Amino acid sequence: MSEGKYRALWLEGESLIVIDQTKLPFSYETKRLTTSTDAVHAIKDMTVRGAGVIGSVAAFGVYLAALECQGNLEKIEILAQRIRSARPTAVNLMWAVDRMLKVLESANSPQEIIATAHQEAIAISDEDALGSQKIGEFGCDVIAKIAEQKGGKTVNILTHCNAGWLAIVDRGSALAPMYEARDRGIDIHVWVDETRPRNQGANLTAWELGQSQIPHTLIADNTGGLLMQYGKVDLCIVGTDRVTRSGDVANKIGTYLKALAAYDNQVPFYVALPSSTFDMQVSDGVKEIEIETRSADEVLYMQGLLASGDIGQVRVAPIETPALNYGFDVTPARLVTGLITERGICAANEAAISSMFPDLLS
Amino acid sequence: MSEGKYRALWLEGESLIVIDQTKLPFSYETKRLTTSTDAVHAIKDMTVRGAGVIGSVAAFGVYLAALECQGNLEKIEILAQRIRSARPTAVNLMWAVDRMLKVLESANSPQEIIATAHQEAIAISDEDALGSQKIGEFGCDVIAKIAEQKGGKTVNILTHCNAGWLAIVDRGSALAPMYEARDRGIDIHVWVDETRPRNQGANLTAWELGQSQIPHTLIADNTGGLLMQYGKVDLCIVGTDRVTRSGDVANKIGTYLKALAAYDNQVPFYVALPSSTFDMQVSDGVKEIEIETRSADEVLYMQGLLASGDIGQVRVAPIETPALNYGFDVTPARLVTGLITERGICAANEAAISSMFPDLLS
Repeated sequence: MSEGKYRALWLEGESLIVIDQTKLPFSYETKRLTTSTDAVHAIKDMTVRGAGVIGSVAAFGVYLAALECQGNLEKIEILAQRIRSARPTAVNLMWAVDRMLKVLESANSPQEIIATAHQEAIAISDEDALGSQKIGEFGCDVIAKIAEQKGGKTVNILTHCNAGWLAIVDRGSALAPMYEARDRGIDIHVWVDETRPRNQGANLTAWELGQSQIPHTLIADNTGGLLMQYGKVDLCIVGTDRVTRSGDVANKIGTYLKALAAYDNQVPFYVALPSSTFDMQVSDGVKEIEIETRSADEVLYMQGLLASGDIGQVRVAPIETPALNYGFDVTPARLVTGLITERGICAANEAAISSMFPDLLS
Repeated sequence: MSEGKYRALWLEGESLIVIDQTKLPFSYETKRLTTSTDAVHAIKDMTVRGAGVIGSVAAFGVYLAALECQGNLEKIEILAQRIRSARPTAVNLMWAVDRMLKVLESANSPQEIIATAHQEAIAISDEDALGSQKIGEFGCDVIAKIAEQKGGKTVNILTHCNAGWLAIVDRGSALAPMYEARDRGIDIHVWVDETRPRNQGANLTAWELGQSQIPHTLIADNTGGLLMQYGKVDLCIVGTDRVTRSGDVANKIGTYLKALAAYDNQVPFYVALPSSTFDMQVSDGVKEIEIETRSADEVLYMQGLLASGDIGQVRVAPIETPALNYGFDVTPARLVTGLITERGICAANEAAISSMFPDLLS
């Protein structure tokens, strides 16, 4: 498991080190997680976020639980349930916890349980890394094709929220094809939605792309529609927190609006995901996926860099104004051009998903 | 011409007093405009904004120009051109300046020119007030009908940006039907888009509705689509800066995305406007309307109330991140359920607009 700046988390002895994403881009700080409760808090308060990274932290959280409980499986299962319910929408969280518990059941001694937890958590994180590499390659083929159609002119890609290496170990999902395009020398430019209310685009994606010298421009979430009307967007690539077996996509609030605009302007709209993000138990995303509501303060206050150079907040509404803060929305499969996965690009419908991922049906 | 808190501007001797909308909701301050240059700056820096109010300030700006030039028409015309070009997208601005100049041409002496300018500017502002009253009544009939269909249950209305009395003398366009609904005792609740990057929803609409005890909830611009998927929006009403003869609607950036979501969820989408907002010279809004780009800093910095109680700013993106800031987008007529005007509700197409407003064709 590699370490350092371009990975969102790594092991250090018996603790998990994570980048504190609530401080980026203004301050690069790490946090040391030594207990499963630390892991729950890191997921809840969004010290870590992003489908894959939440899954990895959850998996390592179960390992930390195993250490805390000296390998007592019953006690581990109680702590694991707390991790599992830290955030309701992200399916990787449940997937990772369930996978960890399943392998622990087959271990025969407390020592073996701890060793297995250690091993399996690293495996989950390393599989993410391998998957994101493949997602990058398949997604980049789409970009390369458009570059060819444009005779080598810059390919303009719009993305929403952050689905880079801060979100999925260790190249991301939506951003992985862009990193691959840079490596292949394809001329791209990225429109970065700021992604209110938590500004993961302005704070994280803009920072990631800047670190990697990928040309990009920050825009208000409201702007993408006009850019598409003006033909300034060649394709959209976003990540996702859960994809149903019918291809409906739960992702950061506002994704659905961009998908509608892409459809209205014949702009291809791709969703990039590791297969661990599929939830085959669910079909109708709007009816069946629980969308979490978060604190109204995320809408009412905006964090950023003060003139003093400190990180601070401003309140953007009258003191007595109430706010509502849904974290995600659901983009119906009919608006999705394709799903970019580690096995290839899959149409967003049950037949295509089932035939590319028969192993998920069992 | 009425004065004070619920009107965005009023005359005081030979100066125009305007509410400084850049300070709201955190501080209620007025500015005194004594020259046409003051008026140009007030429009450019958004001390005043909103289709109608820009038109009124432009009209009074021409009156201030007339005073400055002691009624010399040639000199007035030079200053008037500066006012006319203060902001490119708002058609009321050009309409008001042209109307002022036209009447001044028929005045026979410097004294008469000044008197006519004074008279005509007041007339323009008072016509806005009368128009917004009628818009409120016609728009409220739509709300009342939905309230009846819902058996008196709360009618949920989504609006974007600010088109209240701060935008159009003196009940607004989009908000006028809501003020009328309150007066008629209809139970409504308003979803207020924060309207990035300048937060006119969070700063101005939330403040206006709070002042008027109309129940409302602030949401990120990204949230409206999910609310419509959930059936939590009964109709949308927005204002506009320009409507083409074919019914295309230029309004605050992001309006198009809400119109797409409304269409996708069969939610009625209405645009409220005084007829001075029609631009019969233009047909295809996307191709023909010049959309202004504003400072990238409006995206990169967020203004609000600091913990200290002062108004301050935070930077929401990395220091080196570039941003692009389009002020408006264009909602194609096909997505618009109806245009709420001072003459009644008009379908968004050339035939209907021409037959309700034949006088605009000449």
